[in-house]
Amino acid sequence: MRTQVGIVGAGPAGLLLARMLQQRGIESVVLEARSRTHVEGRIRAGLLEQGSVETMTVAGVAARLHREGLVHHGLHLRFGGKDHRIALSDLTGRTVTIYGQQEAVKDMIALRLADGLPLLFEVSGVSVQEIATTRPRIAFRHDGRDHVLECDVVAGCDGFHGVCRAAIPAGALTVFDRPYPFAWLGILARARPMSEELIYARHARGFALATMRSPAISRLYLQCAPEEDLAAWSDDRIWAELALRLGAQEGELETGPILQRGVTAMRSFVAEPMRHGRLFLAGDAAHIVPPTGAKGMNLAIADVRVLVRALEAFFAGKGEALMDAYSATCLDRVWKVQRFSWWMTQLLHRYDGGDAFEERLRLAELDYLAGSAAAQASLAENYVGLPYAD
Amino acid sequence: MRTQVGIVGAGPAGLLLARMLQQRGIESVVLEARSRTHVEGRIRAGLLEQGSVETMTVAGVAARLHREGLVHHGLHLRFGGKDHRIALSDLTGRTVTIYGQQEAVKDMIALRLADGLPLLFEVSGVSVQEIATTRPRIAFRHDGRDHVLECDVVAGCDGFHGVCRAAIPAGALTVFDRPYPFAWLGILARARPMSEELIYARHARGFALATMRSPAISRLYLQCAPEEDLAAWSDDRIWAELALRLGAQEGELETGPILQRGVTAMRSFVAEPMRHGRLFLAGDAAHIVPPTGAKGMNLAIADVRVLVRALEAFFAGKGEALMDAYSATCLDRVWKVQRFSWWMTQLLHRYDGGDAFEERLRLAELDYLAGSAAAQASLAENYVGLPYAD
Repeated sequence: MRTQVGIVGAGPAGLLLARMLQQRGIESVVLEARSRTHVEGRIRAGLLEQGSVETMTVAGVAARLHREGLVHHGLHLRFGGKDHRIALSDLTGRTVTIYGQQEAVKDMIALRLADGLPLLFEVSGVSVQEIATTRPRIAFRHDGRDHVLECDVVAGCDGFHGVCRAAIPAGALTVFDRPYPFAWLGILARARPMSEELIYARHARGFALATMRSPAISRLYLQCAPEEDLAAWSDDRIWAELALRLGAQEGELETGPILQRGVTAMRSFVAEPMRHGRLFLAGDAAHIVPPTGAKGMNLAIADVRVLVRALEAFFAGKGEALMDAYSATCLDRVWKVQRFSWWMTQLLHRYDGGDAFEERLRLAELDYLAGSAAAQASLAENYVGLPYAD
Repeated sequence: MRTQVGIVGAGPAGLLLARMLQQRGIESVVLEARSRTHVEGRIRAGLLEQGSVETMTVAGVAARLHREGLVHHGLHLRFGGKDHRIALSDLTGRTVTIYGQQEAVKDMIALRLADGLPLLFEVSGVSVQEIATTRPRIAFRHDGRDHVLECDVVAGCDGFHGVCRAAIPAGALTVFDRPYPFAWLGILARARPMSEELIYARHARGFALATMRSPAISRLYLQCAPEEDLAAWSDDRIWAELALRLGAQEGELETGPILQRGVTAMRSFVAEPMRHGRLFLAGDAAHIVPPTGAKGMNLAIADVRVLVRALEAFFAGKGEALMDAYSATCLDRVWKVQRFSWWMTQLLHRYDGGDAFEERLRLAELDYLAGSAAAQASLAENYVGLPYAD
């Protein structure tokens, strides 16, 4: 087997990359370790920057997104018993859109399969080889047989736990890893969302977030311990704790059947550089952000934009300058987004036994933010998405 | 002896308070442990927010300030080999003014003595007593005799090392104290300032700041160790290090005789509450900020404004509501200013052996700041001074 770009991972990064390469006449093969059912059911992020929506629109994968996505013009911060709306659109002229990551994944899988282009699920034993040469290859097992996919370039879009980053010699990578002393207990529930816009709440008992997937499906989160035992959380306890932390008025938080629940660990992680030889990392394979800033999928999409331009130039015979610049170009945005995600996280979470001085600074910053149009504009421009380099 | 307000300390807070009380027909006595010569020669802060200038103007102590002060409309950040101007006035409509603290002190001392109002230097053995009663008093020794000053209210304006904060029972105070792992080596030199506006430089070798006292006198700082040995710094070494860190072009940094030099430790400190019974703390007696945000004197002036309103109401027989609100009103601003001062400090200094992730966040924040009008506006509105509560 032979292709131009071997893509490991059928998440948003891998699928969008394949689609954008297809638009440019560049061949790719997408390999995914999990089943289609698993990938399509995997509940992840759900908030798209306007630039992400525009990128997906130009890529021709946003038809359902435009029909079903919920466009938001603001968000709410609740702390100290008060609600403060950040008027995203008034402050930036831009919007964000609620659309579940797995819905975007479903749309892109359907398009790729309808186009008859190679996308293999349930491949096993994936091994990325010879990446320091101009003939990298991917060995894997599929349908009971061993295969080798010869490529010009390999794109590692296989997430934090994938094989691609691990294929880079350890000495060639600098890793930044910051765990947080808390996690999120998240639920998906069949219930009308508490508000038309997201509510980020800082409460003495911990952070809470009220978001949604549709006008009938709520997505709700509670700060919890990293090793939190889900068994200790009855439905009633979850709803009561949400109502308390979100400062819900009587009848404001509609309850309903909990469709899914889980505990999500939180970390800030960056591996540099994002390229080694002919292997390019994109999305979670290279970096993880805590979910407070809603940036994970958006950052993956931003990486893919940069990679597509680099590969387009390369396959058009215009040289490797953009490929050489890939890592630095991506990392410029990655670190700004890491900063924003860290900032939102530390500002809104409870730190048990933390530094009392820093806690006062956080309260002062929230208080300042509540009264400053400039500080709100800074939050808003990060939230709706900083401008792309290109 | 008897007065309405006993003021301990003849720094900017104590002298401005005495002057503003005088304007309202409220008597005070100012007691200062040091000599007039010492107080007038003490080199401290030198940058006034527009609100501070306005407050001093209304207080009638700003005649020379308006003649000699240097009005600035911007400041410069230098990092990564580039200069970025923060257009303070374009962003906020306001200015800052360079005028040495000791010049303001000289002006206020001269006015008070010319008015024949009590201001005693070189008092010793100051002891603040009975502050939990409505008849607090100050015992002290002056001109070889022991005195007791009976007051309605005592104002503790005697700085971080003064006796007033120490007169509050330890159990009644909550103290927040954050030292920094670096200090500033500062010089005053007879040399044309490097730039008409301040230059804040972040360099791999550490922070540097170029400011001035007049068109002929430069004030320059270098980040150094808290225990830095001044003897190891020849004039040549100081000038060379400044030129390097400030990124001075050939001829840009004029050298000259060094008139004064010293090492200033840096800390963030807050004691809460700022009032105990009839004792009110103002300025450095209650809080210390690292000098990077140029906020020390400005915060003292903001405290004094709040205290004057409270005392005016009290002595007019309008009750103690504003006195009761004094601490909370001041602390709201104090913590916002602490946050800004901490933020400027950590952003611009070198942290030896610090956390690599946090270092990248700082670099990303500088990079973001350089390109964001919103982030610059937030810096600017803090730098020129947040609005007063009144």
